[in-house]
Parts: sequence; C-alpha cells; structure tokens
Amino acid sequence: MERLQIRTTRRREFIDVTQCIRRLVEENGWRDGVVVVFSPHTTCGLTLNEAADPDVAQDIMASLERLVPEQGAYRHREGNSDAHVRVSLMGASQMLPVEGGSLRLGTWQGLFLCEGDGPRARELWVQWLAS
Amino acid sequence: MERLQIRTTRRREFIDVTQCIRRLVEENGWRDGVVVVFSPHTTCGLTLNEAADPDVAQDIMASLERLVPEQGAYRHREGNSDAHVRVSLMGASQMLPVEGGSLRLGTWQGLFLCEGDGPRARELWVQWLAS
Amino acid sequence: MERLQIRTTRRREFIDVTQCIRRLVEENGWRDGVVVVFSPHTTCGLTLNEAADPDVAQDIMASLERLVPEQGAYRHREGNSDAHVRVSLMGASQMLPVEGGSLRLGTWQGLFLCEGDGPRARELWVQWLAS
Repeated sequence: MERLQIRTTRRREFIDVTQCIRRLVEENGWRDGVVVVFSPHTTCGLTLNEAADPDVAQDIMASLERLVPEQGAYRHREGNSDAHVRVSLMGASQMLPVEGGSLRLGTWQGLFLCEGDGPRARELWVQWLAS
Repeated sequence: MERLQIRTTRRREFIDVTQCIRRLVEENGWRDGVVVVFSPHTTCGLTLNEAADPDVAQDIMASLERLVPEQGAYRHREGNSDAHVRVSLMGASQMLPVEGGSLRLGTWQGLFLCEGDGPRARELWVQWLAS
Repeated sequence: MERLQIRTTRRREFIDVTQCIRRLVEENGWRDGVVVVFSPHTTCGLTLNEAADPDVAQDIMASLERLVPEQGAYRHREGNSDAHVRVSLMGASQMLPVEGGSLRLGTWQGLFLCEGDGPRARELWVQWLAS
C-alpha cells in the first residue's frame, strides 16, 4: 500500500491531489483496474468533483458549512463535530479507474482531499486493485 | 473497461440503470467479485436505493433540492453549483457485489444515475474486480 | 462472499461493526487488498468515522435528523423516506484497506452500520479483493 503525505494549511480546504495519484499510477506501472484512495482520518475526507474552476470547490465547502455549521448543539467536546459529519457526507475513500496504464477521469474531474479540521499533517493510503 | 451510454431527459432525474449492469455481468461472464460503476461527470452521480417504489427516488431528489437549492449565493458562474454539490453528497461511484455469476443486490435495491444538470448524454464506466 | 448478521434495536442507531470485519480478515487469512462491505438494505447504510468517543456518532445522527427529518412532505407511503435519503447520503458500501494480513484503519476510525428504520435483522455482505 502506498502512502501520500499532505500538509493542510487551513481549518477547511479542498486540496486537489489528482496529480499525486496520476504519478503513483505511472511509477508503479499499474495497467487496468481501480485505484482505491483512502483517508485514515475522521475529520478529513475525499471527493471527486470539478477541478477546473476553483469556485466549484468553494461552493461545495460553503454548502457543507451551511448544512453542518461549525457551531451547534454538538455533544462531542473537541469542537470539531462539524468536520466529523462532513467526512461521512463526502466519504472516506474514492475509487478511480485506470485503463491502459493511465488514470481515467472525466474531463473536469479531480480528486480532492477535504480538510475539515486543519491545519494538520494528513496521509492518504492508496491501494491498487487490478481488473 | 466497459462504457454505458445514457441519455437523460430533464435537469434533475434518477434513472435506474440496474438492468444495464446486470446485462454486463452476464455478457462478460463475471463470476465472483465486485463491479465498480463510475460516473466521469461532475454534475451527475450514482446512488443505490429503493427501485421498487418510484416515490423513493422522488423523495431523495426533493430532499436534495431542499438541502442544496438551485438558486443560492454560489460563486461558480455556470448556474449548476447545486448539481456539483449533490454529486459529492451522492458519490461518483458505487460498488456492486457479484456472486456465482449473478449481480447480488438487496431485494429492493437498484442503482440510480443521479442527473443533476441535464438533459445530457452521459456515460458510465464499468470496471470488473474479481474476488 | 461472507455474510454478517446484525440485529438492530432502535429506529435509528450507529453500530460499530469494525471487530466483525477484523475477525473476518483474520479467519480468512486475507493479506493485502481491500475489504468491500456492502449493505443490501435501502434504509440502512455504512460510514467510517470516529469510534472512540460515542458522542461523535450521536452528533452525526443528530445532524442527519436535522437535515432530513422523519416527518416531512414525503410521497413514499411507508413513513421511512428519511431513512432512504440518509442511506444515499452515508453510502451503501465502504472499502477498508488490508495490509500484511491486518485491517488498516486510522487510529480513531471505526466502521458503523447506520440503522435508519429499525429495529430489524440486518445483513452485511463482505467481499474480498486482493491487491
């Protein structure tokens, strides 16, 4: 299993990690199958969405903030319950298809690490499944 | 990797694509493993839910519309930010188990393509992972 | 494919099933790959989140209840539309990495069955994918 290190810089941010995954596919010579990217964190998830216009990631973050506000009647005492809820909404892992040795995503798609309680040092775990 | 072509007919709709996947499993002779269905789009996702009563899909769509309205203080200029947010909430891919050469879903389950910014010509990518 | 039987005891609850998966990995001698856990139900999903402090699961449940209330202008007549919507938000399946024969999760992570319309007898289906 491969591991990626990513340092986040704000409490909440979306970081495009597509190039890191693309590089792993090429370096390892993975041909046909699925890359599973997994976040071992409980306040930091993963989502696939538009990477071309950064406003899209901003809109997703703003919507999540509206739906699950930082302040609320939460029981968990660490003050980051909003981030926990958001990970469950986005997902802790994503699957990315690989074909003919290349990562295959839609034209506008990118993989985002969704930081919800940074800044922190984060890891992503990457497992290869051949077709 | 297999590709399915699906034409959507409205801005927002859920289309049951379970039979398309079932057919692929049979045609390819896939025996035991997992079918990964992947949407390469950023305004069109995938979810597993009840396919027997069409009111369930209607209720999910109505709830998403309430949570992420079409009109809002969005930054992305294309007027479809709501659809982008909803893809991240539903997911861009789903996994479906296959056992003994048959797609195994729960009694009421079906796989839905979740169109959020149609009508459009959509593609689903299907990758097979043997167990 | 392995099957786990889980009896839920309330309408809504999160049940930590991590140990059941860990046991399956050990009993089957799975070494390196991904465990796919799949809920065949349409009112009961799966999510990965913090398992150390039970308040986190409570906060996620309370947030989901706020976002998708039990009572609402739903069309589906069985009175459990809220549970259907929540499954689509959480997800019907999760992937868990395995390395060197051990289930690898983050320090605080656990896998939760998210009951939305219990109490019921539930099943989880577990498929192994070697790396």
